[in-house]
Amino acid sequence: MPDHDFKSPRLFVEPDLAEGVGIEADADQLNYLVNVLRIGEAGTVLLFNGRDGEWRARLQRLSKKRLVLVPERCLRAQTAAGALHYLFAPLKSARLDYMVQKAVEMGAGVLQPVMTQHVQAPRLNLARMRANAVEAAEQCGILTLPECREMIRLSDLLAGFDPARRLVFCDERQNAASPIEVLRADPSRPVSLLIGPEGGFSADERASLMECAFVTPISLGPRILRADTAAVAAMAVVQAAVGDW
Amino acid sequence: MPDHDFKSPRLFVEPDLAEGVGIEADADQLNYLVNVLRIGEAGTVLLFNGRDGEWRARLQRLSKKRLVLVPERCLRAQTAAGALHYLFAPLKSARLDYMVQKAVEMGAGVLQPVMTQHVQAPRLNLARMRANAVEAAEQCGILTLPECREMIRLSDLLAGFDPARRLVFCDERQNAASPIEVLRADPSRPVSLLIGPEGGFSADERASLMECAFVTPISLGPRILRADTAAVAAMAVVQAAVGDW
Repeated sequence: MPDHDFKSPRLFVEPDLAEGVGIEADADQLNYLVNVLRIGEAGTVLLFNGRDGEWRARLQRLSKKRLVLVPERCLRAQTAAGALHYLFAPLKSARLDYMVQKAVEMGAGVLQPVMTQHVQAPRLNLARMRANAVEAAEQCGILTLPECREMIRLSDLLAGFDPARRLVFCDERQNAASPIEVLRADPSRPVSLLIGPEGGFSADERASLMECAFVTPISLGPRILRADTAAVAAMAVVQAAVGDW
Repeated sequence: MPDHDFKSPRLFVEPDLAEGVGIEADADQLNYLVNVLRIGEAGTVLLFNGRDGEWRARLQRLSKKRLVLVPERCLRAQTAAGALHYLFAPLKSARLDYMVQKAVEMGAGVLQPVMTQHVQAPRLNLARMRANAVEAAEQCGILTLPECREMIRLSDLLAGFDPARRLVFCDERQNAASPIEVLRADPSRPVSLLIGPEGGFSADERASLMECAFVTPISLGPRILRADTAAVAAMAVVQAAVGDW
């Protein structure tokens, strides 16, 4: 666990971060820093953009409605994006928000919504997904943001899947082997973890998955888990068995 | 994964369950079954009480305000309570509700709130905690309810701890060994998993924990996890490594 500055607020910004090169705060950031947190020019803020590490910045007030954040010192070097890709059938919005936050905390490098037959929430707001990922990264001290991809059909996902990766899916019918041993049987290939919708995969989908050489089913135990629980549980087991824990 | 009846509503009841011995629905249950789900006397409901397995019951309407549930057939035998005990510093209410639901899904046999120095929500509504556990068990097809215990101080927990169990705590400073290997080094002793408050354990608390022979620290990886994420992640790793997965 690296040392963190837990006291200063932490903001994601889009521009490059370099010493002395000020970034103008947008209206939300200005409101948050000045009106909510009441930080004056003596205060500091932490900035990250997913590329240039974490910087301590000072606040420079240009006017009542203009605030510039000036990076002073890089506190942490940029880390690589997570090797774990998280593929999921979208849930309804509140639980999807929660799941996206959890995926960021668990170190997912890619968030890939996947359309399956039993999906109950066929539309997905990609901007909202990204905003949730940003907020989770701000709160959890994470330096990389996962790439938020457009929804894809399961059949297209399988057809275009990179065979250098493993597609691990959580199969409710598979309860024999320990997921740790199954994962560790092939520890070097990066994992794309697929969590199905609440209704599970259809028989056709399951057959298509099982036909692919890059697919590995794992079990998540004897209880039926809700999709958001299954997400965290499966990511924890992957990270602990073959990931970055 | 056992076969489940997913179609009938599932209710937790307090009385014993035996063939033909009717149980009068309380006002909430009557409202839910009759007014929300609109189930008539032709419908069935699943009942469990944490002791007698799962029963299919028919509905017998005595009057507008009285409904009796009559167990007809036992569909699943009772399962034992989970060996995993989940010990946690209480969170604020909405996130505590969520964490209790997740602990039930993950198979915790005991829910034990623990007071520590950095706890931010020092009061705990035990009735609410139990109601959440019941609701999670109803939804997730689980037959046992975890025992919901009164809050205990960490020092009292350690002083009275059963040395036949292992007390595994998630230590933010501990990031060397894989939690799977640490857990599997002693696979037969049941695990009590302790998750600290958002502010972590104090230095004194950490020292007290490390003095106990029954205590094992584990790491949850390089990122700071929120307490409710850490809960699911740690329970998943325990169940996968030495539990019932």
